[in-house]
Amino acid sequence: REPVTATLFPGDGVGPEISDRVVEIFEAAKVPINWDVQIVGKEVDPRTNSFISRENLDSVLKNRIGLKAPMATPIGKGFRSLNLTLRKELQLYANVRPCLSIPGYKTRYDNIDLVTIRENTEGEYSGLEHEVVPGVVESLKIITRVASTRVAEFAFEYARKHNRRKVTAVHKANIMKLADGLFIKCCREVSERYPEIEYEEMIVDNTCMQLVSRPSQFDVMCMPNLYGDIISDLCAGLIGGLGLTPSGNIGTNGLALMEAVHGTAPDIVGQNKANPTAMLLSGVMMLRHINLSKEADMIEKACLDTIAEGKYLTRDLGGKSGTTDFTKAIIGALDD
Amino acid sequence: REPVTATLFPGDGVGPEISDRVVEIFEAAKVPINWDVQIVGKEVDPRTNSFISRENLDSVLKNRIGLKAPMATPIGKGFRSLNLTLRKELQLYANVRPCLSIPGYKTRYDNIDLVTIRENTEGEYSGLEHEVVPGVVESLKIITRVASTRVAEFAFEYARKHNRRKVTAVHKANIMKLADGLFIKCCREVSERYPEIEYEEMIVDNTCMQLVSRPSQFDVMCMPNLYGDIISDLCAGLIGGLGLTPSGNIGTNGLALMEAVHGTAPDIVGQNKANPTAMLLSGVMMLRHINLSKEADMIEKACLDTIAEGKYLTRDLGGKSGTTDFTKAIIGALDD
Ligand SMILES: CC(C)[C@H](C(=O)O)[C@@H](O)C(=O)O
Ligand SMILES: CC(C)[C@H](C(=O)O)[C@@H](O)C(=O)O
Repeated sequence: REPVTATLFPGDGVGPEISDRVVEIFEAAKVPINWDVQIVGKEVDPRTNSFISRENLDSVLKNRIGLKAPMATPIGKGFRSLNLTLRKELQLYANVRPCLSIPGYKTRYDNIDLVTIRENTEGEYSGLEHEVVPGVVESLKIITRVASTRVAEFAFEYARKHNRRKVTAVHKANIMKLADGLFIKCCREVSERYPEIEYEEMIVDNTCMQLVSRPSQFDVMCMPNLYGDIISDLCAGLIGGLGLTPSGNIGTNGLALMEAVHGTAPDIVGQNKANPTAMLLSGVMMLRHINLSKEADMIEKACLDTIAEGKYLTRDLGGKSGTTDFTKAIIGALDD
Repeated sequence: REPVTATLFPGDGVGPEISDRVVEIFEAAKVPINWDVQIVGKEVDPRTNSFISRENLDSVLKNRIGLKAPMATPIGKGFRSLNLTLRKELQLYANVRPCLSIPGYKTRYDNIDLVTIRENTEGEYSGLEHEVVPGVVESLKIITRVASTRVAEFAFEYARKHNRRKVTAVHKANIMKLADGLFIKCCREVSERYPEIEYEEMIVDNTCMQLVSRPSQFDVMCMPNLYGDIISDLCAGLIGGLGLTPSGNIGTNGLALMEAVHGTAPDIVGQNKANPTAMLLSGVMMLRHINLSKEADMIEKACLDTIAEGKYLTRDLGGKSGTTDFTKAIIGALDD
């Protein structure tokens, strides 16, 4: 197969070192990929009004596929989060986070296997806020039929493609009757076109209570932006945290940017301590997305086997190994 | 001591039966209370524009203290939740939910001991929503300096009174910079007046991840309305669900309405199956609030001892007893 060109954002903090490890593992696995490495500058590009430059965006738009390490948004007034800028400018409307128990990494929960699908462009993230009078602030949550239907369709298509049995729409329509009411109305309408997939609705507070007590009842979950933000992190917590969970941002016509959503961990930069798992598993999601499933399966298995074996774990996983030895172990576990 | 008059809302569904059991236990414990029983009618009171009548509200305003069972909001257009009506009309601005592991009731978590304090009057619960054009809905989140400062002061006073070491303000100010920004600004200002209490801020998604992985790091948590709604249920889930957790709504000058926040459980009404624990522990909170601490301690101990003993548990607690036998066991466990 012809090599695919994919955008790579090495990001900040530990981003470059974990990106390097992913590139190394991909090479060892002979993945047919050429990386188009994109550095986010330290100056605002007037064409995008962001540190994310026009070239950065164009690279993803051209390649249609990318992988992103954590990025640090410079602190200061008026700087929009770089993560959000990418999601919004590229209209990456669905955020997908599979959440699967990792054999060998013990938490209070076993056999977690669910996927959160988060609307990624509107809702509480509209950025529309103002101070009405001193001491009184209004913040606008925007829910549209277009975006709600689009993410619901994505959720059901995802469920169908991955042979999943149920989609749960999460909402607070008993309080936000119009906004969340519209969101679940769209989910319900879409659900009718997928009779083979069970559909249910659950209020967000109850959902969180159920997630911590009986998580196995869930399968695919679909929700507005903020609930997705909260619930995807909660779910990551069930299996061991953001260092282990991959994530994907999906747009129209298959445009996709996968990302490790943990922090940039400035305190351990350059110390050979960072755990590349979330970035690597995001890379695996990326490979599946471009139909390099054989390579995806092989790398995923090598990573999970290495964790299950438990001999070369990074500190955050309870081990004593450095990033490089953990990486070597994964490479050693790749099938030939 | 002179008997105190307290309002009692027996509510709907299993509400009346669990209320009866609480009254029975209070009598057995010789609590000096007269109940002013308030029934919520099935017709809208034009003076309140709600099923909650003027008399219902006046009873709480006069007695300054009340206990409420679950209520069912009639389904249909334009009916505001009865729970919310009470909170809003009585300006019960702080919702307090202590969340304490129950010895003998096993969950995945041990030694949970935290308290969520939720702003109860504004935020995402403003009720201000409209459809801008077909398919586009705006929902307003309102954050004010007055309400944020008021609930922050409540949280710190609560921490001081109950000898708690830390208050965590939960927010999403990286996204809702003005709204949640104002909320944490107020919390931070108030925190400066309580130098003996540690103060920290945590983003809501991370908070939920931390709660499911390392809940013991938390103590008192203070947050806007919706985060409080979500997180208090999540916390209840850690110790066994809403059937076990008490809750209080606190207003100005000590006005307080405690409530069991679980559902009305219409499927088990009249079958001697309902678990009165959440209602009873809410009653215990009420007793502490009016300084009947001796009675509060005695009843709480009897309830927790009965659960720990495990001989007369209701089905939801994994037992085979009915409501009445569970109640008898609690009464039997009261000290003389
Ligand atoms: C970094 C932050 C802006 C972001 C979000 O809120 O979406 C993060 O929490 C995430 O979930 O990717
Ligand atoms: C019943 C509902 C309106 C209420 C809320 O959202 O506040 C409930 O979830 C609660 O937490 O008491």
